[in-house]
Amino acid sequence: MKRGVFITLEGGEGAGKSTNATWLADYLRSCGKTVLVTREPGGTEVSEAIREVLLSPDLPGMHAHTELLLMFAARNEHLQSKILPALAQGIWVICDRFTDATYAYQGYGRGISLARIEELECWVQGDMRPDYVILFDLDVATGMARAQARGRADRFEQEHAAFFERIRAGYQQRAQQLPPRYPIINAAEALDQVRQQLQAVAERIVVESAS
Amino acid sequence: MKRGVFITLEGGEGAGKSTNATWLADYLRSCGKTVLVTREPGGTEVSEAIREVLLSPDLPGMHAHTELLLMFAARNEHLQSKILPALAQGIWVICDRFTDATYAYQGYGRGISLARIEELECWVQGDMRPDYVILFDLDVATGMARAQARGRADRFEQEHAAFFERIRAGYQQRAQQLPPRYPIINAAEALDQVRQQLQAVAERIVVESAS
Repeated sequence: MKRGVFITLEGGEGAGKSTNATWLADYLRSCGKTVLVTREPGGTEVSEAIREVLLSPDLPGMHAHTELLLMFAARNEHLQSKILPALAQGIWVICDRFTDATYAYQGYGRGISLARIEELECWVQGDMRPDYVILFDLDVATGMARAQARGRADRFEQEHAAFFERIRAGYQQRAQQLPPRYPIINAAEALDQVRQQLQAVAERIVVESAS
Repeated sequence: MKRGVFITLEGGEGAGKSTNATWLADYLRSCGKTVLVTREPGGTEVSEAIREVLLSPDLPGMHAHTELLLMFAARNEHLQSKILPALAQGIWVICDRFTDATYAYQGYGRGISLARIEELECWVQGDMRPDYVILFDLDVATGMARAQARGRADRFEQEHAAFFERIRAGYQQRAQQLPPRYPIINAAEALDQVRQQLQAVAERIVVESAS
């Protein structure tokens, strides 16, 4: 049985990852793939309970390293109990945020050293990395306006514009370091144009996975 | 300002750590020390929320590495926001369970390699270690009977006797490796005899801390 392909969707607040995850899954299903859509932090009952602790606006702020350890705790559970078993069965997995988000938010955003993050990445993942990281890139003002239109802000969405500027720059830097596996979607465009870009990326992934 | 002394209390279920933590604090206060009593996992609002995830009997079982990362997430928050600031102010800190419990429960109990635990210990604590680890040693049958008398069992207390036997052996092994900092209390004795043993240990700690 051929292992499934692991695709993660990344980007700042309001970049449209969640909506496009559903669309991408439908597109890949139309190409004959079995697809699982999931998200981080979360994706399992235990990981969603950890997500509650991470995102609750009712808890006081936490130390940046605590946030990082919680992210990787949720990720470990998600990987071991859901993502890895699915990939082993040949299922394609689309995950809304993964470790690149940790580098962007906790690394570039909160200022934790990237080397410290890499230590936990290796501790939890060994050499397991996503096959493709699709970055939905969007200017911060537009993203924040879209996120605010969704309702009450969680603990991350309450951060300031400078925090999100650092995150965007961090994502762009990672995309430049790992180009073929890190396609960038211009998420500022209208939805149908975003879909056209995403479809082109998906077609390339399907072709490459067949070879 | 002289740094406070960091004392942790360890042992299996029903060994009497919590009751004796209060007694030890009162004794040290009678010697003129300012004392903070706290516990793990927990001790801060965020860490107590993590404790809920760890101990809830309503969540399904979790992967052993997830449990380990959650323990260290709670510990990091506890250390950074409560224990280290208190010690720096000269306050003595008594903590009901700490990293030795992680070695005993997740290492000896669940079978996670001790080297993997040590990696996270160093990641979170650097070279910070308790000044004294007081082990309340008790046979498993007596400990389980005492814990059951307290009411509904949490996720750890639902484990079987063999798990607790491994934990007890693990604690004993660690105590043998680090003898002068790792006094052992025979917790099977009657309460007033346990208190006599504990007072002797406390007297030694007060003398050593003055030198």
